[in-house]
Amino acid sequence: MAAGPLPVSPLAVPFPEMPPVPGVRLATGAAEIRYRGREDVMVMAFPQGTTVAGLFTRNRCPGAPVDWCRAALARGGGKARALVVNAGNANVFTGRAGRETCEATAQAMAELLGCRPREVFLASTGVIGERLPTGKLTGALPGLMPRLSEAAWPAAARAIMTTDTFPKGATRTARIGDATVTINGIAKGSGMIAPDMATMLCFAATDAKLPAAVLQRLLKRAVERSFNRITVDSDTSTSDTVLLFAAGTARHPRVPATGGAMLRDFARALDELLHDLALQVVRDGEGAQKLVRIAVTGAVSARSAQRIALAIANSPLVKTAIAGGDANWGRIVMAVGKAGEPADRDRLSVAVGGVWMARDGGVVPDYDETPVVEHMRGREVEITVDIGLGRGEATVWTCDLTHGYIDINGSYRS
Amino acid sequence: MAAGPLPVSPLAVPFPEMPPVPGVRLATGAAEIRYRGREDVMVMAFPQGTTVAGLFTRNRCPGAPVDWCRAALARGGGKARALVVNAGNANVFTGRAGRETCEATAQAMAELLGCRPREVFLASTGVIGERLPTGKLTGALPGLMPRLSEAAWPAAARAIMTTDTFPKGATRTARIGDATVTINGIAKGSGMIAPDMATMLCFAATDAKLPAAVLQRLLKRAVERSFNRITVDSDTSTSDTVLLFAAGTARHPRVPATGGAMLRDFARALDELLHDLALQVVRDGEGAQKLVRIAVTGAVSARSAQRIALAIANSPLVKTAIAGGDANWGRIVMAVGKAGEPADRDRLSVAVGGVWMARDGGVVPDYDETPVVEHMRGREVEITVDIGLGRGEATVWTCDLTHGYIDINGSYRS
Repeated sequence: MAAGPLPVSPLAVPFPEMPPVPGVRLATGAAEIRYRGREDVMVMAFPQGTTVAGLFTRNRCPGAPVDWCRAALARGGGKARALVVNAGNANVFTGRAGRETCEATAQAMAELLGCRPREVFLASTGVIGERLPTGKLTGALPGLMPRLSEAAWPAAARAIMTTDTFPKGATRTARIGDATVTINGIAKGSGMIAPDMATMLCFAATDAKLPAAVLQRLLKRAVERSFNRITVDSDTSTSDTVLLFAAGTARHPRVPATGGAMLRDFARALDELLHDLALQVVRDGEGAQKLVRIAVTGAVSARSAQRIALAIANSPLVKTAIAGGDANWGRIVMAVGKAGEPADRDRLSVAVGGVWMARDGGVVPDYDETPVVEHMRGREVEITVDIGLGRGEATVWTCDLTHGYIDINGSYRS
Repeated sequence: MAAGPLPVSPLAVPFPEMPPVPGVRLATGAAEIRYRGREDVMVMAFPQGTTVAGLFTRNRCPGAPVDWCRAALARGGGKARALVVNAGNANVFTGRAGRETCEATAQAMAELLGCRPREVFLASTGVIGERLPTGKLTGALPGLMPRLSEAAWPAAARAIMTTDTFPKGATRTARIGDATVTINGIAKGSGMIAPDMATMLCFAATDAKLPAAVLQRLLKRAVERSFNRITVDSDTSTSDTVLLFAAGTARHPRVPATGGAMLRDFARALDELLHDLALQVVRDGEGAQKLVRIAVTGAVSARSAQRIALAIANSPLVKTAIAGGDANWGRIVMAVGKAGEPADRDRLSVAVGGVWMARDGGVVPDYDETPVVEHMRGREVEITVDIGLGRGEATVWTCDLTHGYIDINGSYRS
């Protein structure tokens, strides 16, 4: 965590106009847990009948809030009434004290809303290994209640930022039967980003009325296609959390427990929403100057293609070459080889910006370097690798590795 | 590959006094394959009866010289008469032309020495994906023959450098029966360094007389304990090669095909030699300012300990924290968790410079920060992680991730 304010990423996108999600109210405030002069707490309140789905980091040393959410999901049957998030302290590696903070926070919020603690979901992001001052967090909650509003999405996106340089939000609508529903989402994340999942928090809410099991299936599919396809630095956070709340305030035909065709458009909208947010996280990758799309085709399977794509995306030598504007396909070949997946050097082809530089295991004689050089100068770089063995495909996104990453992560905690 | 000369690593060690290995002659010359004004070709010539052992990259897209050496080892029964190495062009991803370069080089050297091409071993290091100008390499060989000398070890170590900032050599002696034998080794490597193996070339030779199968077993064991325990950037080269030649000129009792107790001291000396060279490679890690030793204890197995240690050593967030002098044990916990190996957050302990900062899943209250800060300011950083589950142990070495790495790898090839 860097001491001073960081310049906004050159890859930033504007925050969208976000309509309300009927029934979903938000509020933000300053608990001064770590940061001064900015809001660092965000709550969401949901109406009775709200369902929830969640996916969490696969890091073996997760933070206390991740443990809390997993247990709440399992024991509460997918019911939710509130979400409490703080930025600046991740409540990770804090032992018994960390668990007690979670219990006290959920208890305090449950009392304010008249619900059960297990209906309160929690997330924390920030420094690891320092005790979260529970009183500051619970003490801030009562003052937020009168300020709950359906319009507070932009402030909510700002309150959960840590090293993020811009707030991240997205919105979509979808048809369920003859009704139109809204899905809003916000996210934070810029470093410690790698599947599964990218290090980040993402909170989405819809007014659709969906059984919790259906919601979980839809979320899993959408995360697989979004947050599990991005990487900044190969480091997997201890706090990754994606939560999706369905408030059930929309009027549409009842969705069966199997989901089915009726949800096709909703699934598309959710996929798009999370993909949009995932790319915003990469666009804010620490020190990122370029957004990099890596498409692998011709692998023996989709899983193999994804592993190869991630090996390329995580290679420091590939990422520094891109930072230097160098279409260094030799390093791409190296990264393909190190993935450990089936590959035949003499069938490999590599394209940068749509120009095939290498085909079937050798450089393309006299390929036109001018458009490649031009492409590498831009903000968005496209790399395509054909393995030449099968029909497996995958696309992942990453950013370049620059001096900015070292600046941000090499400074003292302060 | 950077354009200009790089400053010598602050972690450099002096080149040792290297005695001759009786029967092993070396010569170096300038073929101007890529570099100007420096030597870039190195040959070794061995007497009849020399045996050889080799280990190579596990990258699935190896260079043509790696294919050549694997085939020569398999078909030649472990006999060797010569080694030819060039720096500046790796002869990787060069298709049929690359294979033809290997055949022509081995043929040319075999004619000069009166041996068979399969007794000639080859290695190339440098840029990937460009054709190696065969004529420049083979044309340089005749001029080297009159200059072959048992004293040319320092020049040989220099001739194989690419982005290395200092030449790397080591020497040991060992007792076999009542005779003393010598083992000399040289290595190159500074980036694209990760097991298996570290990206590098290493050539060692001894005057001991050892069956090829015994030599191969000893080499495998020594590499496992040295080059497979280091990482600079997690990138695995396409050209990694370790070759060990036994000239058989020493007078010692005949070593049986099973090796056995008679070779205990030789095995120790070989382990030490390769460990010394492996650490020199880390000390020359691109941009390295600090040498980092990571010891993991208490894992469920030695293999698990090694995976956890490498996850810590390869984490960009850990490496940048070390560069910034920050004993950020939270990031170490994250890296333990992302390794995917059995770990229990609440049993983890972390020490830096011998001071336990975290024990059993939480920060140690009031641990003395002064010696830790002092330790982090030094050139050598020691991290110890106890997993608290079993008896598995492993130690790996890496370096920090600094602006220098970005400078070296983010510049245009030129």
